[in-house]
Amino acid sequence: MAIPVETFFLAPDAEGTLQAQIRQMIAQGILSGRFRKGEKLPSSRRLAAHLGVSRITVTLALTELQASDYLESRDRSGYYVSENAPEPPAFADPAPRRETVDWARALGRRYSDGDTPEKPLDWARYPYPFIYGQTDPQLFDHANWRQCALRALGARDFHALSADHYDRDDPSLVEFIARHILPRRGILAQPSEILITMGAQNALWLAAQVLLTQRRTAVIENPCYHALRDILTQSRCHLHAIDVDRDGLPPEALPRHADVIFTTPSHQSPTNATMPLDRRRALLARAADREALIVEDDYEFEMAFLHPPLPALKSLDTEGRVIYVGSFSKSVFPGLRLGYLVGSKPFIREARALRASVLRHPPGLMQRTAAYFLSLGHYDSLIRRTARVFAGRREVMEAALAAHGLDIAGRGAFGGSSIWMQAPDDVDTTTLDTRLRAQGVLIEPGAPFFHGPDRPRNFYRLAYSSIPSGRIVEGIARLARELDSGPGHGADRPC
Amino acid sequence: MAIPVETFFLAPDAEGTLQAQIRQMIAQGILSGRFRKGEKLPSSRRLAAHLGVSRITVTLALTELQASDYLESRDRSGYYVSENAPEPPAFADPAPRRETVDWARALGRRYSDGDTPEKPLDWARYPYPFIYGQTDPQLFDHANWRQCALRALGARDFHALSADHYDRDDPSLVEFIARHILPRRGILAQPSEILITMGAQNALWLAAQVLLTQRRTAVIENPCYHALRDILTQSRCHLHAIDVDRDGLPPEALPRHADVIFTTPSHQSPTNATMPLDRRRALLARAADREALIVEDDYEFEMAFLHPPLPALKSLDTEGRVIYVGSFSKSVFPGLRLGYLVGSKPFIREARALRASVLRHPPGLMQRTAAYFLSLGHYDSLIRRTARVFAGRREVMEAALAAHGLDIAGRGAFGGSSIWMQAPDDVDTTTLDTRLRAQGVLIEPGAPFFHGPDRPRNFYRLAYSSIPSGRIVEGIARLARELDSGPGHGADRPC
Repeated sequence: MAIPVETFFLAPDAEGTLQAQIRQMIAQGILSGRFRKGEKLPSSRRLAAHLGVSRITVTLALTELQASDYLESRDRSGYYVSENAPEPPAFADPAPRRETVDWARALGRRYSDGDTPEKPLDWARYPYPFIYGQTDPQLFDHANWRQCALRALGARDFHALSADHYDRDDPSLVEFIARHILPRRGILAQPSEILITMGAQNALWLAAQVLLTQRRTAVIENPCYHALRDILTQSRCHLHAIDVDRDGLPPEALPRHADVIFTTPSHQSPTNATMPLDRRRALLARAADREALIVEDDYEFEMAFLHPPLPALKSLDTEGRVIYVGSFSKSVFPGLRLGYLVGSKPFIREARALRASVLRHPPGLMQRTAAYFLSLGHYDSLIRRTARVFAGRREVMEAALAAHGLDIAGRGAFGGSSIWMQAPDDVDTTTLDTRLRAQGVLIEPGAPFFHGPDRPRNFYRLAYSSIPSGRIVEGIARLARELDSGPGHGADRPC
Repeated sequence: MAIPVETFFLAPDAEGTLQAQIRQMIAQGILSGRFRKGEKLPSSRRLAAHLGVSRITVTLALTELQASDYLESRDRSGYYVSENAPEPPAFADPAPRRETVDWARALGRRYSDGDTPEKPLDWARYPYPFIYGQTDPQLFDHANWRQCALRALGARDFHALSADHYDRDDPSLVEFIARHILPRRGILAQPSEILITMGAQNALWLAAQVLLTQRRTAVIENPCYHALRDILTQSRCHLHAIDVDRDGLPPEALPRHADVIFTTPSHQSPTNATMPLDRRRALLARAADREALIVEDDYEFEMAFLHPPLPALKSLDTEGRVIYVGSFSKSVFPGLRLGYLVGSKPFIREARALRASVLRHPPGLMQRTAAYFLSLGHYDSLIRRTARVFAGRREVMEAALAAHGLDIAGRGAFGGSSIWMQAPDDVDTTTLDTRLRAQGVLIEPGAPFFHGPDRPRNFYRLAYSSIPSGRIVEGIARLARELDSGPGHGADRPC
């Protein structure tokens, strides 16, 4: 690779002769690892023109660097970083600055102390990854996705996609959502009631910023999606957590004062509870009574392979009270970062303005590619194929769990991609997770989902979205063995 | 196109017989425009299984819909929406809800009343678009961009890109920025001091959220980038605007108390002023004196075709006081939505956590495609080609402006893509813009860049980034003519 001439720079306050400055600049580039062995330098003519010095000065500097083995010249083609050049330290700190800024004081707000746990990025290396929310590369229709991207990258679309869209979305994606996705949930919406977001996370974040203030109260489910709790904590509203039961959020437990209720009625996160129709109606009535809004996170509704799902809460809403959050992260792939908000126009207008201020718009290429993938039917095929495979895996998993007598805390009436599990009371599933990793098994500890200081530590989530059917039995067996041998259950307890 | 079976839904509280409900559901789908003429319905067998009703019920409903001309059957291949079906209204409002939510009360915060003006999305239809910040499709290297995207879409990269990255960036993109982009600005940074953002806008937004509170003071340049002012207004910090002069922000005008200074030293936005080295040092010293941080927006540094640019303010910073904002929106294309923040680790840690909460991460595909485009040298070729063309256009533009005696208020010592113009005092350039549009000329009125109630109305920006050289002379001629005939200058003044 050739090193671009623009990379070369003489510090305006450097000392020494020009020739020495050039030598030093190139040697430092090599020592800092920026210029690598075998890379070609610009010609002395170009370098001289770029730096605004005479060519002879550059030539003399290069010759000296050659003499000291930083550079080597190859006949007629110029100078290269020498194979014998001094070794750079492995991308070492460039001359450490004396940082005098007092960051404890300078930071206006902190965001890094949230509840959302780190998940292992190398999960695919574990043989038994009961990890949630990741793609199974075996299931994804990569060939057709690539075709759709190619089409979106074509000259015809390119102009539209490369432009600055300010605050607008891809009309073909919005139309497909309005015509073909939302009706599956019983929702009829206008394009102006839909906003494309960077995934469900971004949709929840936007809703929280538009609807909440420090004086307002948000109701959340307990347990709930930890990233949602981080979002609400950051918004500094009052948080009121309500314990869910087997039917999800109990409406009668709503506090007298509530401004926004965040709920996952189709498929409670993480317990998988499905809220019955009567309770949905009761929730809407109680929300109306309090003049509260409801943000409905309808994640994973596509994975209803056991029964057709109940229509969304939003479909029962005649007052504009429900704001609906949908996502393609689970049904297509998480790295796509595309989701959507559906709500009344005054709400969508503010969410759109905020989105424009924060990031303008999700990249046009991703939106158009998704629009092609959806409208050409690949999305429906993918969902059907995935649902079929998940149904099979779930059967294997339920049988294995039953065989080992492991307690299921919530399984989801319609399907889904995970089972919510309860270990004996004295088991800390965070410790269990650590011990299991050593045996190639990944589970998701439940504590981060719970609110407040006294979090139950014996719940965990087992997903079957990323583990092949054939590995489930052995994975569950290892889990059962570890539970048996753990604190309170085995002879060889560690403490 | 076939209508997916999942789109069909019986409302749980619908009245009438099942057969009537099915009829009504399909008819409504057609009347609302969701099902379109010629689209194929699922087979009666699939529809029956999906709805959980008997096949004969479905068949009877479909037969009746055929009789009433909603559907037509084609031999052996099933039912289609009839070509004679009743016309849907043009995506009309679905049965208007009686919205009872009081949105004036329900919205916690408003974001839609910012200063950022709407720009015409159809600017490419204007023959004389002196519009700023849009791509010129003639200049962009579409073929190589597509190649890079194809490579990023390959099976090998796909797994990495489809995964949920939580809060991480593409390492190859970060490394290229550290090794090859930042050194051009005299900046040496570690990968851990770099955060990829959704463009410069997102970078400025993140910096504002991390560094400012309602009790802190942000200093901005006057005039400045209007979207930055929107971001700061939303953050509700105190705003202190300082008038820039021919050398940009004058450090001696800094208020005694300042927490964060937002500045564009290389290329003041929108006046194009370049801050001299002495003033940069003075600014750093005064910021240190006040323990203030500086956010340096180094937009458009690549377009330095007249002289090599001065090194960035960040390169003079030995204390960690400067946070640097870079972007590929101007140098690649705006729809890419990729930029970066460079700063001390404590700052980057908080900005990364906030980004994760707001949107997780910029899509992997965009990051990897950009990494290939940069590392294969296409970026450098693109910049050189663009700079050459811009240099030519600028020459034509300056000659045309001189020929008509139009006043240049700021032209940028190093290059850039626009010229900051001053019309006579009594000209309102917003009105001028409206009048010019009728003649196919697009200019950018200057008022939205200014702060406070008494905004000068006679400035405007003329960019040469999207107008071909051959059209500049005529475009400037029309502008000059309109200025001559406008209020205060012609016989035929409108009032």
